[in-house]
Amino acid sequence: MFFGSDNQTGASDKVLANIATANNGHTHGYGDDDWTKRAHRLINETFECDARVFFVASGTAANSLALSCLVRPWETILSHHEAHVIIDESTAPEFFTGGARQISITNTAGKIDAKHLQRFLNQAGTDVPHNAKPAAVTLAQVNELGLVYQPDDLSRLKEVSQQHKLSIHMDGARFANAVSATQISPAKLTWQSGIDVLSLGATKCGCLAAEAVVFFDHALAEDFEHRRKRSGHLLSKGRLLASQFIAWLEDDHWLKLAAHANSQATRLAGALEKNPEIRLAWPCEANEIFAIMPKHTEQRLKKSGAEFYRWYSHGLPAHESLNDTEVLVRLVTSFNTQAEEVNEFIEVAAPR
Amino acid sequence: MFFGSDNQTGASDKVLANIATANNGHTHGYGDDDWTKRAHRLINETFECDARVFFVASGTAANSLALSCLVRPWETILSHHEAHVIIDESTAPEFFTGGARQISITNTAGKIDAKHLQRFLNQAGTDVPHNAKPAAVTLAQVNELGLVYQPDDLSRLKEVSQQHKLSIHMDGARFANAVSATQISPAKLTWQSGIDVLSLGATKCGCLAAEAVVFFDHALAEDFEHRRKRSGHLLSKGRLLASQFIAWLEDDHWLKLAAHANSQATRLAGALEKNPEIRLAWPCEANEIFAIMPKHTEQRLKKSGAEFYRWYSHGLPAHESLNDTEVLVRLVTSFNTQAEEVNEFIEVAAPR
Amino acid sequence: MFFGSDNQTGASDKVLANIATANNGHTHGYGDDDWTKRAHRLINETFECDARVFFVASGTAANSLALSCLVRPWETILSHHEAHVIIDESTAPEFFTGGARQISITNTAGKIDAKHLQRFLNQAGTDVPHNAKPAAVTLAQVNELGLVYQPDDLSRLKEVSQQHKLSIHMDGARFANAVSATQISPAKLTWQSGIDVLSLGATKCGCLAAEAVVFFDHALAEDFEHRRKRSGHLLSKGRLLASQFIAWLEDDHWLKLAAHANSQATRLAGALEKNPEIRLAWPCEANEIFAIMPKHTEQRLKKSGAEFYRWYSHGLPAHESLNDTEVLVRLVTSFNTQAEEVNEFIEVAAPR
Amino acid sequence: MFFGSDNQTGASDKVLANIATANNGHTHGYGDDDWTKRAHRLINETFECDARVFFVASGTAANSLALSCLVRPWETILSHHEAHVIIDESTAPEFFTGGARQISITNTAGKIDAKHLQRFLNQAGTDVPHNAKPAAVTLAQVNELGLVYQPDDLSRLKEVSQQHKLSIHMDGARFANAVSATQISPAKLTWQSGIDVLSLGATKCGCLAAEAVVFFDHALAEDFEHRRKRSGHLLSKGRLLASQFIAWLEDDHWLKLAAHANSQATRLAGALEKNPEIRLAWPCEANEIFAIMPKHTEQRLKKSGAEFYRWYSHGLPAHESLNDTEVLVRLVTSFNTQAEEVNEFIEVAAPR
Repeated sequence: MFFGSDNQTGASDKVLANIATANNGHTHGYGDDDWTKRAHRLINETFECDARVFFVASGTAANSLALSCLVRPWETILSHHEAHVIIDESTAPEFFTGGARQISITNTAGKIDAKHLQRFLNQAGTDVPHNAKPAAVTLAQVNELGLVYQPDDLSRLKEVSQQHKLSIHMDGARFANAVSATQISPAKLTWQSGIDVLSLGATKCGCLAAEAVVFFDHALAEDFEHRRKRSGHLLSKGRLLASQFIAWLEDDHWLKLAAHANSQATRLAGALEKNPEIRLAWPCEANEIFAIMPKHTEQRLKKSGAEFYRWYSHGLPAHESLNDTEVLVRLVTSFNTQAEEVNEFIEVAAPR
Repeated sequence: MFFGSDNQTGASDKVLANIATANNGHTHGYGDDDWTKRAHRLINETFECDARVFFVASGTAANSLALSCLVRPWETILSHHEAHVIIDESTAPEFFTGGARQISITNTAGKIDAKHLQRFLNQAGTDVPHNAKPAAVTLAQVNELGLVYQPDDLSRLKEVSQQHKLSIHMDGARFANAVSATQISPAKLTWQSGIDVLSLGATKCGCLAAEAVVFFDHALAEDFEHRRKRSGHLLSKGRLLASQFIAWLEDDHWLKLAAHANSQATRLAGALEKNPEIRLAWPCEANEIFAIMPKHTEQRLKKSGAEFYRWYSHGLPAHESLNDTEVLVRLVTSFNTQAEEVNEFIEVAAPR
Repeated sequence: MFFGSDNQTGASDKVLANIATANNGHTHGYGDDDWTKRAHRLINETFECDARVFFVASGTAANSLALSCLVRPWETILSHHEAHVIIDESTAPEFFTGGARQISITNTAGKIDAKHLQRFLNQAGTDVPHNAKPAAVTLAQVNELGLVYQPDDLSRLKEVSQQHKLSIHMDGARFANAVSATQISPAKLTWQSGIDVLSLGATKCGCLAAEAVVFFDHALAEDFEHRRKRSGHLLSKGRLLASQFIAWLEDDHWLKLAAHANSQATRLAGALEKNPEIRLAWPCEANEIFAIMPKHTEQRLKKSGAEFYRWYSHGLPAHESLNDTEVLVRLVTSFNTQAEEVNEFIEVAAPR
Repeated sequence: MFFGSDNQTGASDKVLANIATANNGHTHGYGDDDWTKRAHRLINETFECDARVFFVASGTAANSLALSCLVRPWETILSHHEAHVIIDESTAPEFFTGGARQISITNTAGKIDAKHLQRFLNQAGTDVPHNAKPAAVTLAQVNELGLVYQPDDLSRLKEVSQQHKLSIHMDGARFANAVSATQISPAKLTWQSGIDVLSLGATKCGCLAAEAVVFFDHALAEDFEHRRKRSGHLLSKGRLLASQFIAWLEDDHWLKLAAHANSQATRLAGALEKNPEIRLAWPCEANEIFAIMPKHTEQRLKKSGAEFYRWYSHGLPAHESLNDTEVLVRLVTSFNTQAEEVNEFIEVAAPR
């Protein structure tokens, strides 16, 4: 029963096979090869646009490199207080941006909304060079509490962002899950709703290590190749990354993988909601579940071999709190989650 | 009527005269001179200890250099949400620390207290290297809302800090005002209550440009001379800084200057409290006043030539808020504030 | 005919197969898995020691992360003037070290020798904090001119380094080729001859993307996990890297791959030396050849489809220079170089 | 007998008096005051142009802040091998530029000339993002070996620089001495000969701490105010710096101070040249003398109380070398050097 993270499984067979296919023969190094070109093309087709695309091997690299193109070192980046980029990526954004500041602007809400953003920006000092000016917002899609930003959410954020000259970055570590869950086009979920740069993560949903930074605004990408190189993220054998993306995107493979993960999560969440001892902290909108459960249930599940993590209590919504006998846990399903695992988890969690 | 800031006036006559005295003759460069040695000694006598002392010309430099000795680039610095170091010093701390993160941990309280700190630390993730670990607290004495940390406040903060292995930095831009206001010894207000490093600011209280970084813990100072040099803060003619400090500290000159500033503030605050149209957002504990006044009063004062600044509304205490006809303003007195200025301000502010 | 670089081919079949094997099942993320543990163990067995080992996906990352553990931001790193780390890795070392300085200390010699180093160090200013103090030497094995450092070379460098408190880093992008060429043990070529940290590169010799940073001195590794994480080089699916290393090291697979590359280079170099129109700038000691050839020969080879690069003229030894009709070219063989390619190259290069 | 450095004396009486004058009354902080405006205007009049001017308190800050506006972190800065900025300012340029690389491009020549530069640039790799591209040249006027760049020298450097899109920075720590020595206008010695940014140093020639960064090209100054603030170099009491510059520039005070320093150096150099035991390594063109003298003479001078420093042997010209009984020393005169000191030095240095 593996619900610890969607990065605890490997790559899909199709992705793996394409790494092997791409392994043959000679190519130029450092991404100057046909595999890479083809993968770039596929991404542009998928997003119905002409974006500038760059591959890297880790999500932290994708996020931080993207952000470093959006802000100057004396500016700030705004994020949700649970953002992976501010909680789980050390001080990578500070490192890559040369010391810009990361600020979290929410507290108990599940998503950044336009009002949060507006309120923060209205109060933020504008006395440069003394005050550090906000220059970018970053949000995750699916976000860190399992919620999906709808095009309307994004458009409203864009409106406020434009008034204050902020760029918007989307951390798409689980972007596939969002597309599958909403059945909204990749284009509509990104640039058509105001996203300037996307970290398109394939690792969590079927690849081994493959992330793309997708610049819908070419101007923002100007320095990217320098930043990627000097941070050691330009791989010499570029086909490793490209071959994964090709297999992942072709024939909607990525969406099929995501659909499986999402459907298992939906099923699991539905069952847990019916469990009288358990309540969900947030609605399950894709492949993550945040559940409040008794400690004894948590223990029983762990004993049965279930893998999952306790979550920070600051991940609770405003109206929720934990009593001494409860814990907040996060459950994540993957393309590789077995129906049997879900069944077993539901069963073990049932009240005794 | 100059109440904009205590940096809007010059140096005291005594300080100025000593710059001239120190100007004569030849010395070695870069602080390797007798003036500097004597100033170091005076600081140690003042603080009744054997601290390592370094001079720089600006408060931002003093604070950021001090902080860079307390945290590694993958750690975080905690401060009050109104801290000068997080609001008014651009991203200097990020720059000097090589990209550590600054986090504000309060919201509406006037001072950081041990409970704030404890609550934040209890919730902070400790899963390194993913989570960035808190490694230092910085607080200002007098703080940015005009409040003074008492030895008990500091000792309780120290206790929590030690449990979590945090160092404590004090931004003493108005340290003289705190000593004068409390009549507590410099030692008791710093190292005897757990402060590891102090930025001792003389600029705001009678000097032209003179700040000392005082390391009560020698080990923390290990890299300071490198950091100061490579950030351009080692002045070649070191006596400029040392001569100011000597004049400032000798014969309690600094405390006399601060006492004057404080007494004018006390008088002004007292009068404003009696003004039925005005209320103080925070008690006036040293030389800063935060007053909520009608906009028409603000206008009348400005028209009469009074200099002062509106303050961020997030500088209000929890129980306060502004209505549409009100503003929050900050008034600061200095060693050079004239009694007549105070009188005139009180008179013009009186209800019509 | 692919002689452009040993990164222009893919992975060996054995390595590729092991990626697939490791793909199965669930593991913990971020290198906390059995594959990674086993790969660490194998490296320690290979080097007959108890080193601390960290995996990353690129050579630039391995080198810069290693160097960032050896120097403080106000110190300098010394290298050969042709070092990959100073010529071909952008300003990655400056980025990772927080702004330490890279200095090249040779000019026309093929390797850094102890005398070069001694001379440079004797002249280097020691007036800290004004002068930036040398704190590390980095050298490549096989080096960028195709030469191999013998244990004696290294020991002499160590002696000088110790006198001046310098650490030594070895960029082992082609370390396999050096071991194969010299038939000297990995231990003897590294820690037994004074190397403190090794970047062990597997990518150029049979893997897709797999580099290890091997700290023979544990103390130097103290911050590595923080530095790797915040630079985005901690991969979530750690088995991708570990599985490559396991296949690569088991059964001396790495040495067999290197032996093939070296033998093809030796054969090619031997033939070129006999070509009256061509001379070698440097002896071919592993899998790189630096040849001075007529431009018309270069053109003929290119027309026949040979891939290779012109080299910087500052890659010439002191006694050599190019006339207007000559060029310096670099030829690199790989584990995948076909005997037929070598034959064809020799034939096309033959004088007409 | 103080010949150690021109920073070992204080400020001129006129400069000191103006600090006192400017001390009176209230002004806005952070350089938003009339003193600063007037000083900016004076600099523009002096240079017959409309430059953007910024004041800081140290030469290292001026140089590094200026350079940080000329290069991106993945580019390089070229300088003479004896440049103060590469020898005596720690790794400040790396710090301020976010990790650009400093490279010295000469060896034994006294000045960078256009041929040096051209040769280096012709050999420099241009394969971005792998190679770090040169983007700026920095040179000192008077330079670190006491030599003066003539307008022709500068124009030729400019020509080469423009071909390769390099900016030129001039470290004018001793710019006053150069103007006085050449009797060439400040404009002609800077922007009219291709200088983009000047660090105009007043500290070494009559001020206590006053440096101006003068951008002849406004576009390059775009980020300066942010960079100055976040590095702690924006002083709150801006009149301290401005008042020094005003007194220094008015009535050609700066040139009178420099003329005195230069004339004493000329006299001293002339006498030393006639001393049969001493020879000059470089012609004395302003206020620095590089003399090769017997160790016994050096000792005798030291015993008589003369202050001066031994210099690096890499400060010798190509045709010179030291034998075991000789040393290279640097002698610097200042605005405050007494004729008697020079006389005494000459006398004590005379062969016995």
